[in-house]
Amino acid sequence: MSLFVTFEGGEGSGKSSVLKILNQRLIDEGYPVVLTREPGGTPIAEQIRNVILDKANTDMDPWTEALLYAASRRQHLVEKIIPALNEGKIVLCDRFLDSSLAYQGGARGLGIDKVLAANMFATEGRFPDLTLFFDLDPETGLDRISANSAREVNRLDLEKMEFHQKVRASFKQLVEQYGDRFVVIDASKSKEEVAEEAYRAIKSRL
Amino acid sequence: MSLFVTFEGGEGSGKSSVLKILNQRLIDEGYPVVLTREPGGTPIAEQIRNVILDKANTDMDPWTEALLYAASRRQHLVEKIIPALNEGKIVLCDRFLDSSLAYQGGARGLGIDKVLAANMFATEGRFPDLTLFFDLDPETGLDRISANSAREVNRLDLEKMEFHQKVRASFKQLVEQYGDRFVVIDASKSKEEVAEEAYRAIKSRL
Repeated sequence: MSLFVTFEGGEGSGKSSVLKILNQRLIDEGYPVVLTREPGGTPIAEQIRNVILDKANTDMDPWTEALLYAASRRQHLVEKIIPALNEGKIVLCDRFLDSSLAYQGGARGLGIDKVLAANMFATEGRFPDLTLFFDLDPETGLDRISANSAREVNRLDLEKMEFHQKVRASFKQLVEQYGDRFVVIDASKSKEEVAEEAYRAIKSRL
Repeated sequence: MSLFVTFEGGEGSGKSSVLKILNQRLIDEGYPVVLTREPGGTPIAEQIRNVILDKANTDMDPWTEALLYAASRRQHLVEKIIPALNEGKIVLCDRFLDSSLAYQGGARGLGIDKVLAANMFATEGRFPDLTLFFDLDPETGLDRISANSAREVNRLDLEKMEFHQKVRASFKQLVEQYGDRFVVIDASKSKEEVAEEAYRAIKSRL
């Protein structure tokens, strides 16, 4: 059976490293697993991502950004995710629709409902079967990032913190709205505990 | 007063050369005119256009294409068209929303209503004040192109002709649906006659 699982959360929530652990564990158990992340390595989606992330594009309107993410998501879905699901695979995807809803819809203020409606043209109403939300206080998350990388701490200024708080609040709103496909994981626990909790959530759906 | 005029039609309908004639004539009469075309020379919109037109991207899904056009349109609108209108200028734009509706919505089969709904996030409900539809039989239009350029005639095969017929039928459907902002211009007439007709349509709104 196929299962479409998305991993969502703020910066430093540890979702990406947990995703890798689960991927290996499921493969070891003999499951056919595809690990992917937006834009998913499809050349068209990568090109779109390059436009979004181009540091010269500071004048990009928030709706331009949201529509570009939707376009990239469409291509990733059609070229990679849906074919894998049709082959009965488990797809583990690092960030998907809910990141657009929380970041552009909530934190950037476009409106969760509007960004969802725009994404419906990309997804044609297909939602993940299971979404793991790695919930963590943004201060802790950003502390983790600065501890683990060469990034300077002064990037984490007050305005940024407020933005990340909005992202978290938006994810929580999504959990309330779409309770049945979400599992909230306390990402403040150790990586082993978090991975175990995420593993059990996936296994219960297999 | 500001006026947002779009020029629409199939290949070889002559809209682009008429647009240049009208631009000069209105400037000579002292009007503040901005001549533009999607993606409008804004760097972000140009980058998006490059992704759409990249010949390597043959696997592009029609919805990816439609969302990319919407994203490019958003940026063009916000960076160039709306500021010009706010300064009281006349904006003459070569292709806009209706091309997406006719090409992706009608001819590619995504549905005019759906492509319109997706574009609403780009335009926030702003329509052109006046849309000139240069109506021409596609065979004549494509003959004009092949007579005027080095393109080989064998590109205009049967499938293409059917596609262009669908584009024309879709434009006609839009004229029925949005009668009050459309003026249909018989593009089979001489360039001088067509330009005169288009000029009168614009002048009557100034």
